[in-house]
Amino acid sequence: MKCLDLVIVGAGPGGMTAGIYAARKKMDFIMVTRDIGGQAILSSDIENYLGYQFITGVELVKKFREHVEYFNLEIRENEPARVVQKEGDFIRVETEKSKYFAKTVIVASGRVPRELGVKGEKEFKNRGVTYCATCDAPLFAGKDVAVIGGGNAGLDAVLQLIKIARKIFLLEFSSRITGDAVMLEKIKRSGKVEIYTETRVEEIYGNTFVKGLRVRKGEQVKEIEVEGVFVEIGSKPASGFVKEVKKNEKGEIIINPQCETSVPGIFAAGDVTNVFGKQIIVACGEGAKAALAAFLYLGKKAWKKEG
Amino acid sequence: MKCLDLVIVGAGPGGMTAGIYAARKKMDFIMVTRDIGGQAILSSDIENYLGYQFITGVELVKKFREHVEYFNLEIRENEPARVVQKEGDFIRVETEKSKYFAKTVIVASGRVPRELGVKGEKEFKNRGVTYCATCDAPLFAGKDVAVIGGGNAGLDAVLQLIKIARKIFLLEFSSRITGDAVMLEKIKRSGKVEIYTETRVEEIYGNTFVKGLRVRKGEQVKEIEVEGVFVEIGSKPASGFVKEVKKNEKGEIIINPQCETSVPGIFAAGDVTNVFGKQIIVACGEGAKAALAAFLYLGKKAWKKEG
Repeated sequence: MKCLDLVIVGAGPGGMTAGIYAARKKMDFIMVTRDIGGQAILSSDIENYLGYQFITGVELVKKFREHVEYFNLEIRENEPARVVQKEGDFIRVETEKSKYFAKTVIVASGRVPRELGVKGEKEFKNRGVTYCATCDAPLFAGKDVAVIGGGNAGLDAVLQLIKIARKIFLLEFSSRITGDAVMLEKIKRSGKVEIYTETRVEEIYGNTFVKGLRVRKGEQVKEIEVEGVFVEIGSKPASGFVKEVKKNEKGEIIINPQCETSVPGIFAAGDVTNVFGKQIIVACGEGAKAALAAFLYLGKKAWKKEG
Repeated sequence: MKCLDLVIVGAGPGGMTAGIYAARKKMDFIMVTRDIGGQAILSSDIENYLGYQFITGVELVKKFREHVEYFNLEIRENEPARVVQKEGDFIRVETEKSKYFAKTVIVASGRVPRELGVKGEKEFKNRGVTYCATCDAPLFAGKDVAVIGGGNAGLDAVLQLIKIARKIFLLEFSSRITGDAVMLEKIKRSGKVEIYTETRVEEIYGNTFVKGLRVRKGEQVKEIEVEGVFVEIGSKPASGFVKEVKKNEKGEIIINPQCETSVPGIFAAGDVTNVFGKQIIVACGEGAKAALAAFLYLGKKAWKKEG
């Protein structure tokens, strides 16, 4: 079996930047990924990717994709990694469809949405409960909806819904909205949003579809009638398929400043790691570092003839 | 005197990204800088800034500048920092023109070109000796020139000169050209470039202007007649104005994963630091981290009423 220089797992901002750097270094590599764009595609309005004043996640990912296509990278879409495992000097990457061997791997698999873990959530998933405002906001035209979570993701979901929904309830478990002040101001100006802090969702109820939420604020329990529930309470790293590497208590892969993990040859970049600042532009920078570090690693090691 | 939340020193990719993040967090801040764009403006062809397939440094910096202007950032150009010094809880930033006090500072002052340190170099500076191919290549139309340095910066200079100069001598002190293979191939295909490795410049000679180089390869000394000398042997961090922070042996400011320096309240980002990967996209990512870290620091500390 052919042994590649590198397999990149994931094609979000981090993986794509790693791909461009690997291509420029003429490394023999492929990318395997569930999708192209990763979490970047979930953002409606991106104002903080330097060089683009104002762009949607979908448009920015389109630019990324065009860039990557210009280098003729081999991206195997709909092929997420199932196993990344060191075998001797080499690393085995298994997907549902295939198996690869490589000298280095960059894990840039990002994060997946976190669930509320309340009654009714699983039952009404895709029947009113959603984790992607960009994908599903248009389904709730003229309807009342709730957004759970007052961080940037929650505010972003609210901003998308303002143009579409009738009324929006923004529910935050803690005592304050932590998202960007700029976004919060826009939300307040809209007059369409009721904000509840220190409010916890206890149940999502309905019939075939969602009809409402049961929420608690201190001793008080009340029902809020909505047809849509946008869960935006953060995410967890998609790191389960790499067993050997050291992770922190959140399940994030621990990296050093060269994006090296605890296993030589396995590098990691972006939101799947313990990097500070889970931002598109940060993930891009980390992807570049990981590719340069993998390139150095390839050059330094005396490789045995592969079998 | 008013105390700002933040002063950003430098307006290259790192400083500008920090500025955008600070603006979105509604921090009260200004930027002081020698120029806009920093080293990014020196690159002719940039292929690895995700989202732009192919762009010149000048054009990319124009995009950056437009982006920053959209946020109405206050950038004081032609005003490099002279001193950054902690005073009690606050930090004093002195420039040639003014003095500022702030609760936090982000040092993103980048790097300045390194000199050869040979006879004739100072004498013929701007009389044939230059450190900026983008700025000065057009002055050497139809002439023979030398590029000193076989890293990416050197190859980039050669690629710019291929379209303009008559013949180009690429001189590298070590035994191999270390720049990107893609660039080296283009250079070889041009048929206009003579490459010398293990070759050291000993003197730059001339009259009013450069006439040639004296170079040594092993025991052999020879003269190469050129009218232009492009020095591309790397750069050094522009960190001299921050005395207190810990630096490594190269003079780079040592940062932790949150872009914190050894002095609380002073953060640093990009090429002035010991970050791995001195790349535009990396500097951008680091600038975002530094601004987010400064914002956290402002929020956590109980600030005394400033005087």
